[in-house]
Amino acid sequence: MTIKEQLLLHLKDNMDAWISGESLSQQLGVSRAAIWKQARNLKEEGYIIQSSPKKGYHLCEISDLLLPGEIRERLGNNLFGGQQIYYYKELETTNLKAKELASQGVPEGTLIIAEKQTKGRGRRGRSWFSPAGYGIYASMVLRPSIAPTEISSITLMAAVSAAEALIALTPLNVRIKWPNDILLNDKKIAGILTEISSDMDIVDYLIIGIGMNINTPKDLFPPEIKETATSILIETNRPFQRVEILSEFLKIYEHYYINFKKSGIEPIMGRWKELANIVGKRIEVDVMGQKYRGDVVEIENGILILKDHGRTHRIFSGDVTIL
Amino acid sequence: MTIKEQLLLHLKDNMDAWISGESLSQQLGVSRAAIWKQARNLKEEGYIIQSSPKKGYHLCEISDLLLPGEIRERLGNNLFGGQQIYYYKELETTNLKAKELASQGVPEGTLIIAEKQTKGRGRRGRSWFSPAGYGIYASMVLRPSIAPTEISSITLMAAVSAAEALIALTPLNVRIKWPNDILLNDKKIAGILTEISSDMDIVDYLIIGIGMNINTPKDLFPPEIKETATSILIETNRPFQRVEILSEFLKIYEHYYINFKKSGIEPIMGRWKELANIVGKRIEVDVMGQKYRGDVVEIENGILILKDHGRTHRIFSGDVTIL
Repeated sequence: MTIKEQLLLHLKDNMDAWISGESLSQQLGVSRAAIWKQARNLKEEGYIIQSSPKKGYHLCEISDLLLPGEIRERLGNNLFGGQQIYYYKELETTNLKAKELASQGVPEGTLIIAEKQTKGRGRRGRSWFSPAGYGIYASMVLRPSIAPTEISSITLMAAVSAAEALIALTPLNVRIKWPNDILLNDKKIAGILTEISSDMDIVDYLIIGIGMNINTPKDLFPPEIKETATSILIETNRPFQRVEILSEFLKIYEHYYINFKKSGIEPIMGRWKELANIVGKRIEVDVMGQKYRGDVVEIENGILILKDHGRTHRIFSGDVTIL
Repeated sequence: MTIKEQLLLHLKDNMDAWISGESLSQQLGVSRAAIWKQARNLKEEGYIIQSSPKKGYHLCEISDLLLPGEIRERLGNNLFGGQQIYYYKELETTNLKAKELASQGVPEGTLIIAEKQTKGRGRRGRSWFSPAGYGIYASMVLRPSIAPTEISSITLMAAVSAAEALIALTPLNVRIKWPNDILLNDKKIAGILTEISSDMDIVDYLIIGIGMNINTPKDLFPPEIKETATSILIETNRPFQRVEILSEFLKIYEHYYINFKKSGIEPIMGRWKELANIVGKRIEVDVMGQKYRGDVVEIENGILILKDHGRTHRIFSGDVTIL
């Protein structure tokens, strides 16, 4: 653990009091100047720390910023969250930054987080409302040895992980809308945007972007999505710690991802089907403007198999309406 | 037409003689200093032009370099070859440069050419032998509105175009090896490397890279590919103009690509099947180490449909051996 991380732990353990620089200096075995320097670094990262020459240091509140130190504290040496984290107050989109970094060669597990996105995007060029401090906007860099046709599996795992993180930490009963939206009472609460760089045989890198509405108040949503989007705050009437939810998501995703590499997607499909509840349903699906109707007979490697009067359609991605 | 292009045409029309600066100045309606400047530009591009204060200018030989001016002369305002061309003496790979440019937003039709690749690549991370001046190493940027599952069609069209360009301009009887190699007597003479940047719904950009062995002498091939690769020179015993073959390929590809946008891949499939001659054959295909055997029943949107004892496999890409 670095001096900075140790200092933060001490401050967190003593939030009801001041600790003198002298005492911190002794406990951490470094000079008072070093303590002062690390406290300044923590302040720059967004922690609200009071300091006084007489009384010492005092952490005023646990930040709800998605600070790399907070995530690493929870995820230790994990692949996701325990490696290099790029943290920004503001980005156009975390996926864009992730692609830029991935094409420069950053390793699998690299995490990109923004407090705010100025051009937040969802699927099919739609925008994703991304106001500062209220949501989670994060992207992961993955480098699995898979064919480009298998990427649906990676997206599907991300949807399951997002749903399970919300189910574990909130009283909410979310479900998955194929392929990758998380809904609560038919309103969008989270979404996954997967992007790849690939040749015909093997993926070079894969970006999983996640957007989650955590503490967004209802009146903040723009009118055009007020009726179709919701947040945990709106549904539960209380704020949630974003860093807890993001960390839980990363932990669950890592579990599934490692399993996928060992055993493929099948073991995860059962859970996905429970959460999506689409197999057996009659649906209409809009694929880039072309519409297909039919009964969902199976989801195979993330691909939706639709039967209509004996004809079979294999749908990779699209907008589903249950009939 | 620019002054430079007009000057080049005049020089080409008079390769058996010298033309005075005075005469060029009158015919092109510009100063002698302007003629001198444009002649220097042509020299810098690789044209071998003699100049003498007394005799004027003389184009010694038609360059076999893949100069943008030569390609544009043949392809006018075409989408491929008539737009921005990035020309390099040497690149790691043209696909890498193309991806870099595409992610910066260059438009569809942008062409990247190198006289030599220092890290020439084929499919599945294999290397592609790319010595200076003997082959064609080029990449195109495409931005079709298609789903990532449709990219096989784009590759397949490129293979047909490469084969047809060779058939049109040489006496050689090439064939296609699914998905994207061009063979002559079972030896590789050209290959296509397709790379994409995409989300789950729609392709952002697509790079078609082509490598062709044109004038490569047999003793230049490294020992490990001497028995599996060939060139037009080896097969015909005479050199061919690379710029003619590249231009023909671009012209044919453009024709198919525009047709594909209007009518889909079906109209091209007939030609592809003739050249590939794989439907109905019993094959083994290696997909990233996993092997499938069966009878090829169809090629559907570029995907190989294999039947084996009632089981159907849908193969996106792989290494085929005919049994």
